Amino acid sequence: MSKDLDVTGVGNAIVDVIAHAEEAQITRLGLHKGAMTLIDAEAAERLYGQMAPAVEISGGSVANSIAGVAALGGRGGYIGKTRNDQLGQVFAHDIRAAGVEYTTKSAESGSPTARCLILVTPDGERTLSTYLGACVELGPEDIDESLIARSKVVYLEGYLWDPPRAKEAMLKAANLTHKHGGRVALSLSDAFCVDRHRAEFKRLIDDHVDILFANEAEIASLAENDDFEACAAAIRGRAELVVLTRGARGAVVLSGEQRFEVAAEPVARLVDTTGAGDLFAAGFLHGVTQGRSPTDSARLGAICAAEIISHIGARPELSLAKLVAERGL
Amino acid sequence: MSKDLDVTGVGNAIVDVIAHAEEAQITRLGLHKGAMTLIDAEAAERLYGQMAPAVEISGGSVANSIAGVAALGGRGGYIGKTRNDQLGQVFAHDIRAAGVEYTTKSAESGSPTARCLILVTPDGERTLSTYLGACVELGPEDIDESLIARSKVVYLEGYLWDPPRAKEAMLKAANLTHKHGGRVALSLSDAFCVDRHRAEFKRLIDDHVDILFANEAEIASLAENDDFEACAAAIRGRAELVVLTRGARGAVVLSGEQRFEVAAEPVARLVDTTGAGDLFAAGFLHGVTQGRSPTDSARLGAICAAEIISHIGARPELSLAKLVAERGL
Repeated sequence: MSKDLDVTGVGNAIVDVIAHAEEAQITRLGLHKGAMTLIDAEAAERLYGQMAPAVEISGGSVANSIAGVAALGGRGGYIGKTRNDQLGQVFAHDIRAAGVEYTTKSAESGSPTARCLILVTPDGERTLSTYLGACVELGPEDIDESLIARSKVVYLEGYLWDPPRAKEAMLKAANLTHKHGGRVALSLSDAFCVDRHRAEFKRLIDDHVDILFANEAEIASLAENDDFEACAAAIRGRAELVVLTRGARGAVVLSGEQRFEVAAEPVARLVDTTGAGDLFAAGFLHGVTQGRSPTDSARLGAICAAEIISHIGARPELSLAKLVAERGL
Repeated sequence: MSKDLDVTGVGNAIVDVIAHAEEAQITRLGLHKGAMTLIDAEAAERLYGQMAPAVEISGGSVANSIAGVAALGGRGGYIGKTRNDQLGQVFAHDIRAAGVEYTTKSAESGSPTARCLILVTPDGERTLSTYLGACVELGPEDIDESLIARSKVVYLEGYLWDPPRAKEAMLKAANLTHKHGGRVALSLSDAFCVDRHRAEFKRLIDDHVDILFANEAEIASLAENDDFEACAAAIRGRAELVVLTRGARGAVVLSGEQRFEVAAEPVARLVDTTGAGDLFAAGFLHGVTQGRSPTDSARLGAICAAEIISHIGARPELSLAKLVAERGL
């Protein structure tokens, strides 16, 4: 089948509920600042009751990346589970309106559409509490082979290892991707998520992953080592391309014996870091699927990440295609 | 009963769905730029399907004003009808999290919570299409006498004249307000809304309204005259305080034979004019209920309006109390 899609994502389909919070509130609520914690429906209701007035914006890590690919002018597909409720309609509307092919059937019963309660502290850092809701319904039957077959890259979310049947779905997606000559990308998603699934993630990477994304905390958790260079040495060669993002310190790309570094893009006003990693991946994957070099792809990632952290929410507000054109890319 | 609430609002309880749009799209969709059009469920679904990726933020004209009063440090109450669905939960959470007393029972069946589809053009102007949904369920039985009795001012939304039983609710609220020694404020809401209900609005103002808010288009529609000064002369004395907002040209307050003018507050970056009038009213009513002069109250209104148009959405993002303190008010 012809590869008319650049990147198809498989992830948790989530609506973000974003509110400002003071540092003291994060501590008082017993949350891990900067991390993602899974919570149940009751805890979600309790936490929501303590949050400031909020804004609802479609989210989901890999869904954000795919929306980013589309905003760069690439063609994207998405697989992820919602319930057929109001927030599910919001999620489906937003990803389709971004130009992404999204055909996963929503659940007719069971838990509501997932939401991620996001507290943004004055330093722009975000702390995530996710109620997975309908995401637990995602299973191998949702992996649309034709979407996979049409995609140059299939991008999987590490977070998917949490809902019980989604890992089967991920493995099916990975196998189908290679069967159809595509490449498998994976985001490690979150240091605590890596901690929950370290051994399985290592096997997944070795057996299936061509392009790996991780930030410093995630790679430290995977390698169980706090030294960045030691982590980089440990992961080198485990995937064709390893992309390590370092926040304000830029990013490192490892490709075989080669190493490429790019600086972070300057940001006039840091507002909300939600989606920084997701949009870096968007830029990088767009570059890769357009045949760009690892350095140019990482520069695209840095530009997209800078756009997303300059406003609330993890979906692009600007035409990223125009933005990167202005930067000469 | 002691007046421990400054302002209680009665309005349509709405969640805003906000997306960017080009001028050409407004024309293509046949919408009146800058106005509010009522649409049914089917038209709402059709329009939503054509909108760009959106953001959901609690709205509702008078609800925005009351959230503004609370953000200024005042005490607010709110009466408005939602359905017990996800968007209804969002509305209730946000207004309560803003510190407002909101006790109206949500509808257990019938139409879903109202939404306003808002297209924001590059000039910051907003065009509204409202699906009233559960708002049509608001009736006199929802007017909580104790909330009214405790309020110095009860602020009514002109838009409430559209849902069939809400006008009974408004009249009941107005009568109870005066019975308990409070003052009745009214927003004319929208020029087309005035056009639909001109004669009834005139009667409502003469019989019940102490503080009237209108922008230039609304007062022109009420007076059926395009000359601002002629409109001002026609409306003078019909209410104790008449507040006429003029966008970038500031505002005029008429009080008996007196006339006060204030300039608009400068705005560094105009993003989205949604809520400008609502937040002007918030500042003005907060001033009035704190015993401030008409000029100071209008200056408070101008500062709040400037904050709201500098970002997406009609609910304040900053502590308005801090903002006005910085301006020496």
